[in-house]
Amino acid sequence: MLLTPMASGLWIVDQHTDHLHFHYRIDAVLYTGTTAYQRVDIVRTPLLGKVLFLDGRIQSAEFDEFIYHESLVHPALLTHPRPKRVLIMGGGEGATLREVLRHPSVEHAVMVDIDRELVELCERFLPEWHQGCFHHPRAVLHYGDARAFVEGSPDSAYDLILSDLTEPLEGGPSVMLFTVEFYHRLAQTLSPDGLFVAQAGSADPFYPDFAASLKRTLEEVFPIVRVFWAFVPSFQLPWAFVLASKRYDPLALSGEELHHRYRERKLQTRYYSAQLHPAMFALPPYLENALRERGSLISDHSTFVWKA
Amino acid sequence: MLLTPMASGLWIVDQHTDHLHFHYRIDAVLYTGTTAYQRVDIVRTPLLGKVLFLDGRIQSAEFDEFIYHESLVHPALLTHPRPKRVLIMGGGEGATLREVLRHPSVEHAVMVDIDRELVELCERFLPEWHQGCFHHPRAVLHYGDARAFVEGSPDSAYDLILSDLTEPLEGGPSVMLFTVEFYHRLAQTLSPDGLFVAQAGSADPFYPDFAASLKRTLEEVFPIVRVFWAFVPSFQLPWAFVLASKRYDPLALSGEELHHRYRERKLQTRYYSAQLHPAMFALPPYLENALRERGSLISDHSTFVWKA
Amino acid sequence: MLLTPMASGLWIVDQHTDHLHFHYRIDAVLYTGTTAYQRVDIVRTPLLGKVLFLDGRIQSAEFDEFIYHESLVHPALLTHPRPKRVLIMGGGEGATLREVLRHPSVEHAVMVDIDRELVELCERFLPEWHQGCFHHPRAVLHYGDARAFVEGSPDSAYDLILSDLTEPLEGGPSVMLFTVEFYHRLAQTLSPDGLFVAQAGSADPFYPDFAASLKRTLEEVFPIVRVFWAFVPSFQLPWAFVLASKRYDPLALSGEELHHRYRERKLQTRYYSAQLHPAMFALPPYLENALRERGSLISDHSTFVWKA
Amino acid sequence: MLLTPMASGLWIVDQHTDHLHFHYRIDAVLYTGTTAYQRVDIVRTPLLGKVLFLDGRIQSAEFDEFIYHESLVHPALLTHPRPKRVLIMGGGEGATLREVLRHPSVEHAVMVDIDRELVELCERFLPEWHQGCFHHPRAVLHYGDARAFVEGSPDSAYDLILSDLTEPLEGGPSVMLFTVEFYHRLAQTLSPDGLFVAQAGSADPFYPDFAASLKRTLEEVFPIVRVFWAFVPSFQLPWAFVLASKRYDPLALSGEELHHRYRERKLQTRYYSAQLHPAMFALPPYLENALRERGSLISDHSTFVWKA
Repeated sequence: MLLTPMASGLWIVDQHTDHLHFHYRIDAVLYTGTTAYQRVDIVRTPLLGKVLFLDGRIQSAEFDEFIYHESLVHPALLTHPRPKRVLIMGGGEGATLREVLRHPSVEHAVMVDIDRELVELCERFLPEWHQGCFHHPRAVLHYGDARAFVEGSPDSAYDLILSDLTEPLEGGPSVMLFTVEFYHRLAQTLSPDGLFVAQAGSADPFYPDFAASLKRTLEEVFPIVRVFWAFVPSFQLPWAFVLASKRYDPLALSGEELHHRYRERKLQTRYYSAQLHPAMFALPPYLENALRERGSLISDHSTFVWKA
Repeated sequence: MLLTPMASGLWIVDQHTDHLHFHYRIDAVLYTGTTAYQRVDIVRTPLLGKVLFLDGRIQSAEFDEFIYHESLVHPALLTHPRPKRVLIMGGGEGATLREVLRHPSVEHAVMVDIDRELVELCERFLPEWHQGCFHHPRAVLHYGDARAFVEGSPDSAYDLILSDLTEPLEGGPSVMLFTVEFYHRLAQTLSPDGLFVAQAGSADPFYPDFAASLKRTLEEVFPIVRVFWAFVPSFQLPWAFVLASKRYDPLALSGEELHHRYRERKLQTRYYSAQLHPAMFALPPYLENALRERGSLISDHSTFVWKA
Repeated sequence: MLLTPMASGLWIVDQHTDHLHFHYRIDAVLYTGTTAYQRVDIVRTPLLGKVLFLDGRIQSAEFDEFIYHESLVHPALLTHPRPKRVLIMGGGEGATLREVLRHPSVEHAVMVDIDRELVELCERFLPEWHQGCFHHPRAVLHYGDARAFVEGSPDSAYDLILSDLTEPLEGGPSVMLFTVEFYHRLAQTLSPDGLFVAQAGSADPFYPDFAASLKRTLEEVFPIVRVFWAFVPSFQLPWAFVLASKRYDPLALSGEELHHRYRERKLQTRYYSAQLHPAMFALPPYLENALRERGSLISDHSTFVWKA
Repeated sequence: MLLTPMASGLWIVDQHTDHLHFHYRIDAVLYTGTTAYQRVDIVRTPLLGKVLFLDGRIQSAEFDEFIYHESLVHPALLTHPRPKRVLIMGGGEGATLREVLRHPSVEHAVMVDIDRELVELCERFLPEWHQGCFHHPRAVLHYGDARAFVEGSPDSAYDLILSDLTEPLEGGPSVMLFTVEFYHRLAQTLSPDGLFVAQAGSADPFYPDFAASLKRTLEEVFPIVRVFWAFVPSFQLPWAFVLASKRYDPLALSGEELHHRYRERKLQTRYYSAQLHPAMFALPPYLENALRERGSLISDHSTFVWKA
């Protein structure tokens, strides 16, 4: 049989920026199409396993989604001594929900995503992510706008809210989900010892403005705001998260207490560990400086918008 | 909805040479897999419609396959006053067979292709090419090695043989199908006024060696050998064909006779025409020179092999 | 020494359309920059030798520029029995001028190009194209708008005008150089037996609209209008040319007369030949039909503009 | 002026693996060529500033080289109370030397690199990296094989040796620079309180085998061996480093002592900080496990070789 030339064949391109394109070889296209909200490509790659692309950008790879999802969920949930009621905004792949449900104290986890077609596609094509959790007895799915949902929730409804939303890209559905007005209302729906955690985009030397602005905005609302980070290879970037809290400080927990909670909840993680917990909050000077200097208040009248 | 960045999304790459790659955007992957003989990718593109790639190289595009297939078939069949028995070597897509069957005098057209899986994939995915002709009452399909098939055919079995084979790529199945020994036997299976026509690869300024060698080799066997060419945009190259004949010269036909045969056979073509017929045989000096100077005799002991 | 992975290294991409990109490996970047009119990249490639890109599109390759330039120049100049005064609109690389000057009867050849920086870059980096002809005693260079130059020329000033302009791309400098008003004035500046020839863009099955409209427009002005074509591999497309004439018909010349003129002028060509001359004017039905059906009159008030 | 299509223009491709290619747009090619040891491309990009590629792989980018170089140098040098004599193996760009020389106690820093042409190219084209340090009065440059150089050094010659070598790619010059035999001799050339630090390749979930084997091998020679990591966006991967020490443990230093040393040495860093120091040594379970399970002893008779 002939040798197919090395570069020949099927690829998916991620135009990361106008100046950097990633070309991933693909073995199969599991789905390509457009929902009411976004273009969806689900492919199988020899390098990263299955990969989900939204609007042409890599969103989640089988290979390392655990890094992102464990980082989003466990530092926040372990900071709370006994989280019972959890709300996830976004999180279509189901992996955030999966990680949340690992905490046995969680009595119900509500996930609200605007894009029902996407969730159904993920349920069909990405079982490695959700592992059946959409039908977990403690899980509730709701389709619709997360802001409207939060605004319609009673006060003190949740112990923990996770923001697993796409960045506020121009024209995208999440632009109004990062404003100080929304966060004031969101804080009301949290119990008096509640926490909020959000994925906050790139933490690289060039583009930490979103993380900085998110931190600045949450500081208007919450007494304790901490930025932490993780390295997600398939995002090609260090990734920031912001944890905002009414009472508990993730850095005030002793290592002993963290280990205790981790063991007690019978967690098994591949990226997060009680030992790594404080290290995730240690940031390099370039990022400390950027967080201090480059943030601006995000409000309904002055939104933060990424140029696509 | 967000704008997906322009370069993002699904592509198929054709590594034309180590130094030139073509990237075609694709809408869908209809099939990707490997037969016993070759890698097969069948995709839908916004530019060229459906496209068939074999071993990573573009083979045939819905957009302009008519140029290649009309060129391979009609100059040769119109040169014969009444072709009845036709043999096609290769031709998996079925489009050569389709064009052959347009000539009403053809009583049976035998197609012999080594790769049954490929023919079945083409039948399933490329109806625009074959248009049902695999099941035409005057068509006969045979799966196996074309050389063995020809060697096992009786003398004077065919009025016309068409060689619609891939170039003799290193390790590929067609290396022994272009040798002088084979052509001697092939000529015996042609009737005394029979013709042979072969696709002969690129006719560009750099790589006409295969066409030149094919011409040189056929001149050992046939009294009349003519090279003609056509421009197939999706091949990115001018394409050569060699017509070898025992009696009829494609250049000896008057325009009047060509028009008469064309009308009489009720042909309807988009590329070929009686008027274009002689023009297809007019070659530029660079190609005339290359055909004169760069050909060498292809034999069983000294095959022509393309480095992939 | 290590093997550099095959796809690694320097490339130039030609975004041929949004759906087809060509990636050429490059050995060196001779120049990259922007003139007042266009982006210019001059590179050396292992495949095509030196290549000139304008606004990101391949313009001319050392490997096969002879096909384009011989086709533009010689059919027209040989149709005229004794061309003396020639005007070239555009033609920055100097290769059109080079071919024009091969005709010994030419007493002066004026070249008018709007982009002086481009011509100077070509003079410096592309000697294989111009071969010193910018300083030929019978050559005159003029920098400025070709329409203004023609409108300011006296009546009957030229025996032959060649339009070697980029297609009328949106926002580009050549949009007003293809209108019927301009061609009326241009015809006045031709002698009573004068000819005009223009490169007319793609002749492929999809995009022959510009060639069709150019033909239609010139038919308003000239009694004899003929379309011919050539296949330029580095353009990846068959290429159309339109020849418009006041008296001489390129198809009325006998082969004998063509051969006589060719020999008398001591031409030496690699693509054009007296034998190929009539074949270049033989077009396939798809193109004949498109030329008949898809052309519209181009006027100052209704220009033809390519969407880039 | 026309808009050049987005994907058009000059790019450099990094074939990261056969299945993932990075395409970086480039503004200029500062140098492309081949030394006696490797292919070298130095380009300017709009995204990452100047970038050095060796054998087609990204080596160092102006944008974030500080992350790699500060991580290689400062954890090790701050662990030693008063490093005086330092040896750098490799380090052609000069940035490792630059960071070493920031420590005022360093009396001389010897850099030994096999590729003199590369160092000269870096001196000429990458002043942002070396900042003139090749001519620093405390710097000594030596060209040649690092193993031979170390083997020829007297015992106790250095307080600190840094291994800033390319990974042991098949056919590359560094294969014999990671073996236990070599490290035994290297340890002899270190003073009784000396340290060794090496860049150790990827720390991602798939490919930490080199780091694991390097750790395993150094544990044969040194009593204290610690792995730490950093995320270098332009490498697209988390990056491992191994620190091996005769006496000082980088994790035994109090935060107070680290801050004291940092201030006393008047360091100014963008990635490293005394606060980040312990966090760099905190590793996720997937990496802890891989380091424990996937390492094998590297010896002269059983080298570690990366398939390119």
